[in-house]
Amino acid sequence: MPGQTRLLLQAYGDADGFDVIEPLSLLSENARPADWTAMAAAVTSAVGPQHAGVVVTHGTDTLSYGATALAFALTHVQLPVVVVASNRPLDHPEANGHSNFRDALEVIDTVPGGVYVTFRNPDGSRLVHAAARLQPSTPLSHYVHSDGEVPITGLDELPRPRFEPPPWPAGPVEFGDRVLYLRPYPGLDYRAIDPAGFDAVVHETYHSGTACAVGASTSVLDFARRCGAAGVPVFLGPVPDDVAAYESVTGFAAAGLIPFRWMRAETAYVKTSLGTGMGLTGDALTEFVCRREIAGEFTR
Amino acid sequence: MPGQTRLLLQAYGDADGFDVIEPLSLLSENARPADWTAMAAAVTSAVGPQHAGVVVTHGTDTLSYGATALAFALTHVQLPVVVVASNRPLDHPEANGHSNFRDALEVIDTVPGGVYVTFRNPDGSRLVHAAARLQPSTPLSHYVHSDGEVPITGLDELPRPRFEPPPWPAGPVEFGDRVLYLRPYPGLDYRAIDPAGFDAVVHETYHSGTACAVGASTSVLDFARRCGAAGVPVFLGPVPDDVAAYESVTGFAAAGLIPFRWMRAETAYVKTSLGTGMGLTGDALTEFVCRREIAGEFTR
Repeated sequence: MPGQTRLLLQAYGDADGFDVIEPLSLLSENARPADWTAMAAAVTSAVGPQHAGVVVTHGTDTLSYGATALAFALTHVQLPVVVVASNRPLDHPEANGHSNFRDALEVIDTVPGGVYVTFRNPDGSRLVHAAARLQPSTPLSHYVHSDGEVPITGLDELPRPRFEPPPWPAGPVEFGDRVLYLRPYPGLDYRAIDPAGFDAVVHETYHSGTACAVGASTSVLDFARRCGAAGVPVFLGPVPDDVAAYESVTGFAAAGLIPFRWMRAETAYVKTSLGTGMGLTGDALTEFVCRREIAGEFTR
Repeated sequence: MPGQTRLLLQAYGDADGFDVIEPLSLLSENARPADWTAMAAAVTSAVGPQHAGVVVTHGTDTLSYGATALAFALTHVQLPVVVVASNRPLDHPEANGHSNFRDALEVIDTVPGGVYVTFRNPDGSRLVHAAARLQPSTPLSHYVHSDGEVPITGLDELPRPRFEPPPWPAGPVEFGDRVLYLRPYPGLDYRAIDPAGFDAVVHETYHSGTACAVGASTSVLDFARRCGAAGVPVFLGPVPDDVAAYESVTGFAAAGLIPFRWMRAETAYVKTSLGTGMGLTGDALTEFVCRREIAGEFTR
C-alpha cells in the first residue's frame, strides 16, 4: 500500500472497502503530460462495477493541471472521481490532506459521475470544485479556487459537468507534449521563442482578452504569422464575448490567431495537449479545443 | 487636455487646481518597458512644490506591471502618486473609473509619499493598494488584488512602503527590455526558448516554490545551466522561507539559480527590468533584485 495513501486510510480508521493502487509516484512539480496519460490509464483499468468512486492523491503544485487532465480523460468513467492533495506532508499537524480526503468520500456519496477536487483553504472553507475549471493555487498563500466552487455543504449547487463521452473524433486518450503555452507580459520578446516542431501554441491573453499588437519583437500578430508559416496553430484566450469592442483584437483573426472563450488558458492548454496527443490537427483540433465541451470546462 | 482625463475632471466637476499632461497615449496591452521609463520621466519632470499629489491614468490590462514600475521608479518623489484605471470606457454607465478617481483624491489627501492604486472591484469593494504589491487582474472577472490591500475607509492600515530613495548603485532610471519572464507549467519545453542576448531571466515557481527538475527538455536545472553558459542570470521565485523542506529545490543553487523571496514573480520581473535597464549586472543586480527593498515590495 503506497505511503501517502496508507497515512490517509490509517487516519480515516477504516481501510476496508478500499482498493489501493500506485501507478506512479512523483513530485507534482515534476509532472509532465505523459504522467497525465498514465494516471488516466491507471484509473480506467482499475475501476469496476464494485466501486462507488475513485480518490486520486496528487501534489498541490500542479494540481490544477493534473485534475483538469483527468476531467478530460475520464469522461467515460461513470463514477465520481475526486482528486485530493495536501498543503503539507500528511504527518504535519496543519496538513489539510485528511480533511480533503474525508470530504472526497462525502462527495463520492453525493454527486454523479465526474471529476472533482476537494480542498480546505487556509481560511477554513472546505470547497468542492469541478476539476475542469480549477485554477492554479495562489502563490505563497496557497488558496485553491475555481469558477463554480461550492462549499462541501453545498454539493447540490455544484456546477453539473456536461459530458461528452469519447470517442471524440480521435484515437486513444493520450496527452501530447508538443504544446507551447505562453502568457503575455509587457516586453515579451517573441524572438526568444521558436515554435517550430510544436503541434500548437496556447497563448493566454491579458484579463480583458487582449495582447500586445505593436513592435516588431513584441507583437503577437507577427508571432502568429511566424507560427502560421511554420504550420503551428495558435489558440488565443480567454477572449470575452464582447471582444469586438477592443481595438487591439482587430487583426487577431487576420493574423491567424484562433480565439477560445469560456475557459481559462490553463484549461485550454491541457485540452490542447489532449487533442494533439490524440492526433487531432487543423479544423478538427480547433473544433475540439474551442467549441466542443467535453467535461464541463465551459464556464458560461 | 487629454480625452480620458477630461472625462474624469468633467465628472468630478472641478477641473481647477489640476495640471494635466499627456506624455504618452497607448492601449495598456501595448505597453512595453520603454513606456514605463517615459511615464516615470514625465511624472518626475512635471511635479513641483505646488502639487499635493499625482494621479496617473492607466489601462487595466497591464495595470499591475505599470503601477509596479512607477513604484520602483518614483521613490524620489515625496508626493502620493495614485494610478487609476477603469474597467470600462469612462462614458459607460458601469465604468468604475470615476469612483477610482475620486478615491485617488482621497488617498492623496491622507497618505504619505508613495505609489498607490485605487480600484473598485465588481463586488463593490473600493480597495487601495501599495503599487509594488499589485497582482494582475483576474481573468474575465476583472478583480484587482494585492498583498496588503485595504478598503478606502482603512487608509491608516495601508502597508507603509519602506523606501530606499535613489541613487541606488546604478544610473538614471530606465527600464530594460531584455529580460525574459517564464512561468512553469507541466510540459514546458525549454528547448523552444533561447536565452541568448537577454540580460536576465525571471522564472516564476509553482505556488510552493518549486519547478520541474526532471527530463532533458523540461528540467529547470538544465535550462539554468544553459543560461549560465550564455552568461544570463536566472532569478527563480517566489520561494518560501521554508523552501529547504522541498526535495526538488535541492540542486537549484548548484545549477546557478538565484532565489528571490517575499515578492510576486511579476514584481520581480519589473524590478529586474529596472535593474538591468540601469546597467546593473552580476552580484550588484542580484543584490538589487533579491535583497534591496526599494518601494515596499517585500510582503514579509
